[in-house]
Amino acid sequence: MTKSSVNPSIRRRSLLTGLAATAAATVTAGAAALPRSAVKAWDMSIDVLVIGSGSAGVCAAIEARQAGAEVLLIESLSQLGGSSGMSGGVVYAGGGTALQKALKVEDSVEQMYRFVSLAGDVHPPLDKIALYCEESPAHFDWLVAQGIPYTQKLTLAKGLPMGDESLYFSGTEQAWPARELATPAMRGHVPGVVGMNGGRRLMEALLSRAESLGVSLRTRVSADRLVTESDGRIAGVIVTIEGEPRAIRVKRGVVLACGGFIHNREMLKLYAPKLYDCSVPWGNVDDQGDGINMGIAAGAAALRMHEGFAIAPIYPPENVISGIVVNASGQRFISEESYHGVLGDAITYHQKGQAWLITDQESSYNFQQDNFLPVAEGSSINAIAAQLNFPSGALQQTVAYYNQHAINGDDPMFHKSLTYLRPLQGAPYKAWDLSVTQAFFPAHTFGGLHTALDGEVLNSFGDIIPGLYAAGRNTAGIPTAPYIASGLSVGDCTFFGRRAGRAAAAANGDLA
Amino acid sequence: MTKSSVNPSIRRRSLLTGLAATAAATVTAGAAALPRSAVKAWDMSIDVLVIGSGSAGVCAAIEARQAGAEVLLIESLSQLGGSSGMSGGVVYAGGGTALQKALKVEDSVEQMYRFVSLAGDVHPPLDKIALYCEESPAHFDWLVAQGIPYTQKLTLAKGLPMGDESLYFSGTEQAWPARELATPAMRGHVPGVVGMNGGRRLMEALLSRAESLGVSLRTRVSADRLVTESDGRIAGVIVTIEGEPRAIRVKRGVVLACGGFIHNREMLKLYAPKLYDCSVPWGNVDDQGDGINMGIAAGAAALRMHEGFAIAPIYPPENVISGIVVNASGQRFISEESYHGVLGDAITYHQKGQAWLITDQESSYNFQQDNFLPVAEGSSINAIAAQLNFPSGALQQTVAYYNQHAINGDDPMFHKSLTYLRPLQGAPYKAWDLSVTQAFFPAHTFGGLHTALDGEVLNSFGDIIPGLYAAGRNTAGIPTAPYIASGLSVGDCTFFGRRAGRAAAAANGDLA
Repeated sequence: MTKSSVNPSIRRRSLLTGLAATAAATVTAGAAALPRSAVKAWDMSIDVLVIGSGSAGVCAAIEARQAGAEVLLIESLSQLGGSSGMSGGVVYAGGGTALQKALKVEDSVEQMYRFVSLAGDVHPPLDKIALYCEESPAHFDWLVAQGIPYTQKLTLAKGLPMGDESLYFSGTEQAWPARELATPAMRGHVPGVVGMNGGRRLMEALLSRAESLGVSLRTRVSADRLVTESDGRIAGVIVTIEGEPRAIRVKRGVVLACGGFIHNREMLKLYAPKLYDCSVPWGNVDDQGDGINMGIAAGAAALRMHEGFAIAPIYPPENVISGIVVNASGQRFISEESYHGVLGDAITYHQKGQAWLITDQESSYNFQQDNFLPVAEGSSINAIAAQLNFPSGALQQTVAYYNQHAINGDDPMFHKSLTYLRPLQGAPYKAWDLSVTQAFFPAHTFGGLHTALDGEVLNSFGDIIPGLYAAGRNTAGIPTAPYIASGLSVGDCTFFGRRAGRAAAAANGDLA
Repeated sequence: MTKSSVNPSIRRRSLLTGLAATAAATVTAGAAALPRSAVKAWDMSIDVLVIGSGSAGVCAAIEARQAGAEVLLIESLSQLGGSSGMSGGVVYAGGGTALQKALKVEDSVEQMYRFVSLAGDVHPPLDKIALYCEESPAHFDWLVAQGIPYTQKLTLAKGLPMGDESLYFSGTEQAWPARELATPAMRGHVPGVVGMNGGRRLMEALLSRAESLGVSLRTRVSADRLVTESDGRIAGVIVTIEGEPRAIRVKRGVVLACGGFIHNREMLKLYAPKLYDCSVPWGNVDDQGDGINMGIAAGAAALRMHEGFAIAPIYPPENVISGIVVNASGQRFISEESYHGVLGDAITYHQKGQAWLITDQESSYNFQQDNFLPVAEGSSINAIAAQLNFPSGALQQTVAYYNQHAINGDDPMFHKSLTYLRPLQGAPYKAWDLSVTQAFFPAHTFGGLHTALDGEVLNSFGDIIPGLYAAGRNTAGIPTAPYIASGLSVGDCTFFGRRAGRAAAAANGDLA
């Protein structure tokens, strides 16, 4: 991290020092949203309170501050940056961004919209997707203006660039059936830094920008409960600072932006049972669903709580894509070149969490790696099938069918690109375990609060809860399952985070 | 319907006649839960208010009344009985019920628990399942005591009995892999009436019982909003009677029991997008999610909102089970003898809503039926495959593999029972469309409010919302996706409805 995001002056600076020594409100164990009548006095007052320091929260804070609001951003952990800071830092952008144009990558809003709306789950939030695509070039310009460094370099290699390239195919655009739904274009925009440091660099820039604008950033402050007026409007938030509850009056709006719930095992079991079984919770340890739960307790609706990404990152290296992936019946069920999120979704949600990558000599991992362990090895497909106890003759038939067509450059079932298509031949054959419990199978949640286009949180009757906004993985946004491209989540966080911040700052709050 | 459930004396009788002419409260458009301060005066007062007249609501009302409470049950439609009255009326019961014993059907609580907990979705609600199984024999005795008629007859035929048999295999117990998880036993208990009238007969008995106990039953009264005290306790309910809002003070507890949301297209798209596409909404037209939405607005958590049943009722006739079901890749993916709910789940949730039943002369539907239309017909499998544009050679390979093993009495992939296993041979071959949008594909929702074992509604922090109870498809209960047996939903409704009613009656309400 550069000094900006870990600078003690940020982390220790506080609007909250000098709080009244007596806590103004006590959180009743088990209370849902607190009625304002339970708050005897406020410890402080602010225009906009942002909860969470990932990309959604910081973008909200920047916009709210630029709109003239006094903004306090609180983070429960000691480190700013949230799960965005731990991510690849990819923003899915297109429709003709400045970087796409500079690199002669052709794209259109229409094709981007087609891809995002058609290649994932049925009935995605079309209004959000349309807005996101239409404003994508302008949003990318804004990211650049915040100081995020992008290089004018692209790479055709699959997978997050480990060099300093800033544009690549971050999703499943080129794999069948997506490539028939929309013209593929490179839309993964990633900070131009060597190594997997894009998320850190993205957050350094955004945090530095927020600081320079005068957003107050405060770590080790957790939000516990929303405080509601009797008419349902959000009056403020009870937070915990150094073990003590404090009551913050929020004059314009609260922005919930503190992430999903992949680290909350109880919530996973209740809401997203299939993600519960995935081996690696992917995200910040405080992705505990707090923001979602605070919203629900205040009457908000939460959508698609079962959905998330569950990724099977079989490539790089790309040579393994010439292997085949099979289910417990020894059948192929997907093009092996599909993006990690699409393959992972198929295994997690639709194949009971089990699959195997079958490789021959050339398509084998040719280095020591721990993501997927070889569970069978032999001089023939028969040997592999016997070791794994596939249904009699099933894997053999699958390979025979695949080879028979591959030799003619054809993959009738899943239309694997010619780049990767060739018969499996040449011992040793190996089977690699892609099961969600045994493999390296990162997962993250996508379910969250129901929001309108400006981040207004909606109740179960579709009405706005006044004073309450949310963004990022506190909301049900652009990312659904299957996750069709890296960058859709951080893209959604930054884009809708900005809108939530602007709307919160403009809210006509009760100034009492 | 017998006179008991349509008796004008029930439908017209009302505790609400003589209400104050001026409405005591006005429901603000878009209000979530109403604060009690918004209620100027109550129009009436009752110990327990039950919302919904399906099996969950009526069982709750019976138990609450028997516990000494004054009980009002309201129904939004003009007809009592809810979706239970339209159902088969099957209750999934076991562990040695009186009927199982009389018919020499061996069963144990342990095997029933194994089946219900292992054959469906991962991480089901084990506490509810355990209680349900342990108390199943006693619950069945209670149903008998309410006057529901069961005959001492069973049938081995698959599918809801059209004769007067009262016990049958209502689920997927005998199909692989379920039969390896638990010893199969007949657990579908259905009123002994000829024709598909079990649900009507069940509700007639329960409604008659409720009436005789002195439960006030009122139709054409819809519930709009819960009224909450400032501490979150439920104070009452705003209802609509003849177009006017009325405020009902509830002294002990409100029981939400007004069904799922399969008829609410907007909710389906938001919460359960895959069920949105299914052709036939299965249930009462007022399954609009009102109870769920009222609960959410009061801060309740809702679980598994994406889940439901989506059924592909390919049998009877059983001869078609000797056909094979294939996906868009021409692959089998399930044992064709699986219960309708299991097959339907596989198609709806895991095969992108598409599948085909392939039959030969003997396994064809041999009568005019409209549930599934033939979309290809020919003298060979080649002809079928060509007409449906399956991947080159894929269906042919599937049939060859299936036949090669079937002739030896083996089904290596899905272990179809020998009863149904034989090679496909003998033109004409046909393909029947099992797609969710084109076939007869009934669907219903399973997601609902998070409840404790006595129906107490829980908020997002896992705490009880005082005074609020729910049961049946207003809750996330025993039924999850896949739906593994008929009778789990009405079984859950009746069993947990009773508990919710008892708990509501016993609640130490504010008598102010």
